[in-house]
Amino acid sequence: MAWHHRHVAMTLAGRAETATQAKILRLLRDEGPKARVELGDRLGVSRTTIAAEVARLVDLGLAADAGPAASRGGRRSTLVDLAPQLRFVGIDTGATSIDVAITDGRLGVLSQLSEEHDIKVGPEKTLARALELTRKQLTELGIERPSGVGIGIPGPVDFHTGVPVSPPIMPGWDGYPVRDALARELGCPVLVDNDVNVMALGEQHAGVAKQAQDFLFVKIGTGIGCGIVVDGQLYRGVDGCAGDIGHIRVEEFGPTCACGNTGCLEAFFGGAALSRDATAAAHGGRSEILAAVLDERSALTAADVAAATAQGDAVSVQLVRDGGRRVGHVLASLVSFFNPGLIVIGGRVARLGHTLLAEIRSVVYRRSLPLATGNLPIVMTEMGDSAGVVGSARLISDGVYAAD
Amino acid sequence: MAWHHRHVAMTLAGRAETATQAKILRLLRDEGPKARVELGDRLGVSRTTIAAEVARLVDLGLAADAGPAASRGGRRSTLVDLAPQLRFVGIDTGATSIDVAITDGRLGVLSQLSEEHDIKVGPEKTLARALELTRKQLTELGIERPSGVGIGIPGPVDFHTGVPVSPPIMPGWDGYPVRDALARELGCPVLVDNDVNVMALGEQHAGVAKQAQDFLFVKIGTGIGCGIVVDGQLYRGVDGCAGDIGHIRVEEFGPTCACGNTGCLEAFFGGAALSRDATAAAHGGRSEILAAVLDERSALTAADVAAATAQGDAVSVQLVRDGGRRVGHVLASLVSFFNPGLIVIGGRVARLGHTLLAEIRSVVYRRSLPLATGNLPIVMTEMGDSAGVVGSARLISDGVYAAD
Repeated sequence: MAWHHRHVAMTLAGRAETATQAKILRLLRDEGPKARVELGDRLGVSRTTIAAEVARLVDLGLAADAGPAASRGGRRSTLVDLAPQLRFVGIDTGATSIDVAITDGRLGVLSQLSEEHDIKVGPEKTLARALELTRKQLTELGIERPSGVGIGIPGPVDFHTGVPVSPPIMPGWDGYPVRDALARELGCPVLVDNDVNVMALGEQHAGVAKQAQDFLFVKIGTGIGCGIVVDGQLYRGVDGCAGDIGHIRVEEFGPTCACGNTGCLEAFFGGAALSRDATAAAHGGRSEILAAVLDERSALTAADVAAATAQGDAVSVQLVRDGGRRVGHVLASLVSFFNPGLIVIGGRVARLGHTLLAEIRSVVYRRSLPLATGNLPIVMTEMGDSAGVVGSARLISDGVYAAD
Repeated sequence: MAWHHRHVAMTLAGRAETATQAKILRLLRDEGPKARVELGDRLGVSRTTIAAEVARLVDLGLAADAGPAASRGGRRSTLVDLAPQLRFVGIDTGATSIDVAITDGRLGVLSQLSEEHDIKVGPEKTLARALELTRKQLTELGIERPSGVGIGIPGPVDFHTGVPVSPPIMPGWDGYPVRDALARELGCPVLVDNDVNVMALGEQHAGVAKQAQDFLFVKIGTGIGCGIVVDGQLYRGVDGCAGDIGHIRVEEFGPTCACGNTGCLEAFFGGAALSRDATAAAHGGRSEILAAVLDERSALTAADVAAATAQGDAVSVQLVRDGGRRVGHVLASLVSFFNPGLIVIGGRVARLGHTLLAEIRSVVYRRSLPLATGNLPIVMTEMGDSAGVVGSARLISDGVYAAD
């Protein structure tokens, strides 16, 4: 990954200086401690070079010796590992939630805090809350300064400057210097990306997409978006807005979308549409189960629909099936176009579970080219709330474990 | 480009041996003759290394000295160019046509032959005809053995083995060893790809996509397909069938497609559908102009519809507009998903011209995210019949100008 437009904050902490150092760090992150001789074999580099590069990484505070390796017959060698003091912060902000985790150098989660949060309160308040949740955990873990921070936000981001670009559901965030603001506060490198992109990175690092080189991560939350991984790398598009599948037209007419068009997938399905339709069904007397829940509050959520579906509520089952069918038609198009090796479905609405997944699969397998679906798993994420925070940590680790 | 599953045919001709040699060859192909000192500067390699690598390329018959460079003040240096005897063969087979060109090392077309040809006659007859057209031109140009052959065919290809995989409109081609058969006959390296992919490569090399790193090439011929270029490289998908957009659903109901589904883009539009609809309109007495043309033969073609459109025939104009609208809706989805920097439209049906392009643009600009369309040109190819043959030559040159 090229590290464009480096700002002052980027030079405060140790980073790889050479391509070989970067490769060593990523290998240690993804596979764990290794003997120097194995590192040399894997990277096709001489023992002398490996010894020198590892020594430099130790000086930079990025690697450390980690005890004797299992004997391979000759002289026992010493394992190299990532430095035990490495700590990343992974922040995942959604439309209605904020999650902050602290990880070690291999992105293992040491601590996590999650809470409801309305992104519409604006960048100052949201980042202030993210900083509180971060500092609380840093203090508890005795960490003075993290090695880097990654953050995902629910809108388009100019990745090179770390600034949101006209995010439709985030009033006040357009052009706000998210990266530089966090870097100044925490004194470490920061990278910002779209929330769906960081969830895709999380799946790639620790989820079902771990072995996949070309896959799609589809988030069905308040809105609907898609992370695209090509040849192991996130594909962001020329303007950074690739994966904006919520506004693909699924029918000629339909509810008016926040974008101004009609027929958009997101206007039919996703958390906001599901809440609208379930609430209307309850008011209209079409579902006793939903009406009973609505008696207790002002609006219904995707979780209420999930619960009603589990109780066999016909209206809720139909809402989920209709949504799944429409998502399926969009994904069938993308499968024909992109021929991915795997599709992972995540996000809070995805917790509607098997009814949703069955409908999506049925449409995709029926509509796409047999060659493209013959070996195409479509699966639910198994990472729960952690895809976003692990992906954010992965994002910044890719930056720290890289040489320009 | 990795050169997978190398077979005997691949080792007959000279190829680059090192990454530096490969970079030198591609720079000479894409930018023309260069002084050694400039090559060193551009590749970040010492003069000694450049001198040695160029000398080796001259020995391999891939490069040659090309006269004195313009003086830069000091001692006059000698330009390096691709070897003047380099010759590539570019073959483009469509559903109803075959084009064969001979190019020099920079992919300039020295000679081209094109004729109508029905791909349904099968691989033996088609390749025999391609070989006749190739040998005729090689003989006329006094070429004993070409440096390599690239060929595009109108169906999915396993790129690594050069074999068609269940191509729907090519009976008898499934599993036929196209690459090995041509390599045996012509005694040189051969690479095979989908016809739309090679047209995208042609646009990238010599067309409007020359500066584009992320673009789509949409071919509207008998069928409809899409070549996808990501970061300057063709993206083929995990099974090699990416870009199969002709079977994306555009409406819930519609004519039954060759694939068995209904509502596919290709069942509504493309050469075959247009011929069907225009012929039906003529038979049904809905267009005097089309009926007059039909009197002279058994069926109407896209070219007839284009001519009738130019004469103001209302039925033809409507057919083109309906087709453009449906293509536009599919492209709008792909723009939301992929955020390309450019869309190029080609293929024979694309010659319907401005009426078609205007309709496509109108839908895409209205339906896609403003951020994605703010700077998105949608243009017609300017390469006529040469995108395919130049792209096929580019394909094989990428193989010859590469080190494993």
